[in-house]
Amino acid sequence: MFTSKPFGLVAVGIIMLQLLSPVVAQSATEEQLRNRNRTVSLGIVVFPGWEPLDVFGPLELFFSISVAHKLVLSVIAAETGLVSAGVPPHLMKPGEPPMDVGYMLQPKIEATHTFANAPALDIILIPGGLGNVALEQANDTSVEDFIALRADHAEYLLSVCTGSVSLARAGVLKGRRATTNKGAWDWVTSHGGDGINWVPTARWTQDGKVWTSSGVAAGIDMAYAFLRHFYGEDDENLVATMNGIEYAPHTNADWDPFSVVHKVYWRCTTPTCGPLTLTIHDKVPGADPDANVEGCVKPVGF
Amino acid sequence: MFTSKPFGLVAVGIIMLQLLSPVVAQSATEEQLRNRNRTVSLGIVVFPGWEPLDVFGPLELFFSISVAHKLVLSVIAAETGLVSAGVPPHLMKPGEPPMDVGYMLQPKIEATHTFANAPALDIILIPGGLGNVALEQANDTSVEDFIALRADHAEYLLSVCTGSVSLARAGVLKGRRATTNKGAWDWVTSHGGDGINWVPTARWTQDGKVWTSSGVAAGIDMAYAFLRHFYGEDDENLVATMNGIEYAPHTNADWDPFSVVHKVYWRCTTPTCGPLTLTIHDKVPGADPDANVEGCVKPVGF
Repeated sequence: MFTSKPFGLVAVGIIMLQLLSPVVAQSATEEQLRNRNRTVSLGIVVFPGWEPLDVFGPLELFFSISVAHKLVLSVIAAETGLVSAGVPPHLMKPGEPPMDVGYMLQPKIEATHTFANAPALDIILIPGGLGNVALEQANDTSVEDFIALRADHAEYLLSVCTGSVSLARAGVLKGRRATTNKGAWDWVTSHGGDGINWVPTARWTQDGKVWTSSGVAAGIDMAYAFLRHFYGEDDENLVATMNGIEYAPHTNADWDPFSVVHKVYWRCTTPTCGPLTLTIHDKVPGADPDANVEGCVKPVGF
Repeated sequence: MFTSKPFGLVAVGIIMLQLLSPVVAQSATEEQLRNRNRTVSLGIVVFPGWEPLDVFGPLELFFSISVAHKLVLSVIAAETGLVSAGVPPHLMKPGEPPMDVGYMLQPKIEATHTFANAPALDIILIPGGLGNVALEQANDTSVEDFIALRADHAEYLLSVCTGSVSLARAGVLKGRRATTNKGAWDWVTSHGGDGINWVPTARWTQDGKVWTSSGVAAGIDMAYAFLRHFYGEDDENLVATMNGIEYAPHTNADWDPFSVVHKVYWRCTTPTCGPLTLTIHDKVPGADPDANVEGCVKPVGF
């Protein structure tokens, strides 16, 4: 039976806002208005062991808003076809056999393009995941080679979680602020050499065209902040997207309780130190063990 | 170069907790302990136009925890192979041509099983998405037929967003509390006949074996609540999962600012009413226009 309101989600929200909202004074910049009115090419890199929510958190926002703003998506990997989130075998500790967790769940996404033939990209999103570790241990530099090649061509580079390792190895973080998930702080920040301003307490960072987020779910908060930058905070379609997906975002980039949870306020400086020793070697500049862990959120527009 | 802490994310967190935590008094129930120690079969239903985060929000939690608790995953659809999140054409209003938004982003997941050969399932997750609408308009009842067939065989049924339409049409919501996303309240609640206790202000509901969540991102909060029920709140692996993915969950099932955002406190009762008329016809029992829209969250365990 056909009803007067036969559907849901974003499309309804967008149409309702357009019909019900008074004309809002445009506070969008010229650039934001241009962004709303051009087709934007988004590329998402994946590799075996990509972290599911690193990809699909931000992707949900781009997907939802694509009903109203023109976007094209490329999912980019070494080979086209299915790419599993299943974690490849990798070394946990020197001298031990590889950790094989192939029994973990293995959802698979379709890669539409390869590093060789990905189209022109405006925004490149690089997820994290334990697959990062496996790539490094296999001396596979394909992800960072691709990023290094395309970095100048792209308008924006976004990393989620340990995806910032790929940015670091590609050389694009030199002289920039960056963060990562806090459970892998020491490992991630050992990459890219000197000159990277690793920020230990940050939900996400933005430095020019380079945006990096903390772990996994933080990618959603970064994605909203990015879309607010790209399309404008008052973009009706962005507001409708956030309220259609019923996500109340963390909007303060400094809110990072997980830097406290994961004790990112000391830095391991000898081969034997590490979280297991709890010995404070060097205090990490900018880390705040007393950072407020509670964050209060509400729907966008309220 | 190999470091003493070469990896990230959940595996580290789990190992750290196991090594560093004092032995915590077990407060888990017998059932929760059994759940931690048996292989659990999870099935996720998809269909063309599945909502990305409806699937991958909860799936991230199951994926992460699968390093420590045995889980097997089936992605179930009408046919195996690639299933697109791209929204199929569907009618928005009677008398108008179908709305074709094929230009929207089209990420694709791999379906591993069909409705005909899905294995024995303990937990069935049903996402929402505009694909629901297209299925209904095509008189395609395959999703609800599958749910109706397997409902008694499964231990738990979980729906996200408009996935509760499928549960309603399968007849499993009779006499139960249920909710859905709030942007499609009228449409969703027109399904399943009388006898369903639709709850208008709820982030998620639980009624026996049936769990339903509000829109999209609410699925993550429901998934955490479910895993807390299933494995126990003090399950170290669940705590490590939530802190590894850096998600601070909404833990109050009654917190639902989106019922206010989407004005779910009136119910359309004539063919011409609806959100466009803003005429209050019937007040929806249990709806609260003054519900608090702000929610404060913090990391699990803090």
